Amino acid sequence: MTGRAVCVVGLGLIGGSVLRAAVRAGRPAWGATASGADQEAAAGDGFTVLPVEDALAKAADTDALVVLAVPLPAVDEVLRTVAAVAPSCLLTDVVSVKEPVTEAVARRAPDARYAGGHPMAGRSASGWAAGSAELFDGAPWVVATEDEVSPAAWRAAAELALACGAHVVPTTASEHDAAVARISHLPHVLAAVLAATGAAGGPLALALAAGSFTDGTRVAGTRADLVLAMCEGNRERLLDAVDDALGRLGAARGALASTGGLAATIRAGNEGRAALVALRDTPREELRIDLTDPEAFEDLRSLGSGGGRILRLEGDVAIADLPD
Amino acid sequence: MTGRAVCVVGLGLIGGSVLRAAVRAGRPAWGATASGADQEAAAGDGFTVLPVEDALAKAADTDALVVLAVPLPAVDEVLRTVAAVAPSCLLTDVVSVKEPVTEAVARRAPDARYAGGHPMAGRSASGWAAGSAELFDGAPWVVATEDEVSPAAWRAAAELALACGAHVVPTTASEHDAAVARISHLPHVLAAVLAATGAAGGPLALALAAGSFTDGTRVAGTRADLVLAMCEGNRERLLDAVDDALGRLGAARGALASTGGLAATIRAGNEGRAALVALRDTPREELRIDLTDPEAFEDLRSLGSGGGRILRLEGDVAIADLPD
Repeated sequence: MTGRAVCVVGLGLIGGSVLRAAVRAGRPAWGATASGADQEAAAGDGFTVLPVEDALAKAADTDALVVLAVPLPAVDEVLRTVAAVAPSCLLTDVVSVKEPVTEAVARRAPDARYAGGHPMAGRSASGWAAGSAELFDGAPWVVATEDEVSPAAWRAAAELALACGAHVVPTTASEHDAAVARISHLPHVLAAVLAATGAAGGPLALALAAGSFTDGTRVAGTRADLVLAMCEGNRERLLDAVDDALGRLGAARGALASTGGLAATIRAGNEGRAALVALRDTPREELRIDLTDPEAFEDLRSLGSGGGRILRLEGDVAIADLPD
Repeated sequence: MTGRAVCVVGLGLIGGSVLRAAVRAGRPAWGATASGADQEAAAGDGFTVLPVEDALAKAADTDALVVLAVPLPAVDEVLRTVAAVAPSCLLTDVVSVKEPVTEAVARRAPDARYAGGHPMAGRSASGWAAGSAELFDGAPWVVATEDEVSPAAWRAAAELALACGAHVVPTTASEHDAAVARISHLPHVLAAVLAATGAAGGPLALALAAGSFTDGTRVAGTRADLVLAMCEGNRERLLDAVDDALGRLGAARGALASTGGLAATIRAGNEGRAALVALRDTPREELRIDLTDPEAFEDLRSLGSGGGRILRLEGDVAIADLPD
């Protein structure tokens, strides 16, 4: 089924890149968007762009995989059209939080065969023009792997992720949302805090800023509405992550004020960064998971929890690897 | 005086790069280091490396500019040798805080003709092997410009900075220390907090980490002892910056918990980042400052406060520019 058609709703940075990558992989693929600018740009680049209802009707006719690629606040409205035009379609999404989208699908399009998704790739620019077919090459792409997920939709979403050059990280919506609060949403909040604190030092401070400030504030340049949709949509999980960070920063403050020593803070940071580098550099062990096994989803979730990923599918077998 | 000899004490990343850049500029230059590994590596690369006392004696004989390039905790010991061997030498430093070094020079080597310095360039690797002659190209290099600073030392330090490819930012030790707390030391603390908070999410979180986490934690990979020397040496100023960041992060926490809205935080971050980009991209106005003017140092400090920099020296005139 590597040739399944793909219908992408939303043609910003991520959706636009999915459409390009699907075409690169040889899939029949078309898009739809409410943005006049993105529509014009995508059509101008030679891609098929249809009105949303037509795009979804075509997906229903051809059993295409529908990819929701709109910001969280726009998800409900698109799902209403899905329920009207393509109620039992194969459905995934590339929205940055998974529990709210899973709940919205259950509420608005309960007959859709749905498996949530989230490619972990981005850049601070946005819109169709910022996208590229290569955006997902080598990137992790979460596919939600709860027992309730439709196996057909899981398979279609995983195949799309792999066709786009990504590897698949299987986990639950809940574990995904907790993880991205720490490694995607908190970084945006801390980058904003750092940018504001640095700029409060005036032109002299900004004139002296070198790599540590430039890198640490890069994502503070992202369009505010996109960051807000992402962070506010993951409110409870982000609160946990912010509280953890506040506790650590408060402890650093206390240590600096009392003993003058920051060793515990800096060492913990060293260890965290080393864990990131180790996960990327450690030799990995290959393993095979039989997708027809009744416990397959449980095995896949364990793979994800351990830092593992699916590299390709061979028939009904997922070829995966895991840090050794 | 573009040909003044340079004696660099300390041959780690920064000192090693100063020695290479001085040689690249055609200066007679030699180094000294307490590190056997750096000594061997620098000599192996064809540079002149002498025992510290011999290096300083040679500097005294030739009126060379002595550059202290050791971590803050080692400054006192080197200054004792300076006082013994080259008591009235031209002296600058490349240490990351300026008030503590200024105080140490006044205490240990009061006859030295001293102007503090700080090139704002670095990378997370350390030691001679990590350095390069190009490290300072296009970078800001602070030269302390208090009324008490020896004009001869100021001139020698500024000429060295320019010869190394940097531009000179004139300011006081105190304003420097407050500025770098915000744009250099706080970024290290926040990177450590982010790395530790992310790693607490386990292998799944680290496996999903993309650009925002990778960039935001890059400097958390810096050697802990170097970060500690830098941050702990600027304790009072860093406390102010951490308190500012804690206040902003606490406000974000409160807003997220009460209304669920992060707009004020994210918008302030957007504005801070935009101010950084604007300072780098704004057209700049050229101006000339006569260094023989009795008010020259005051004019230079205003230049630095406004985000300006010295691009070159023409005789006794500093050619500078300032955001328009």
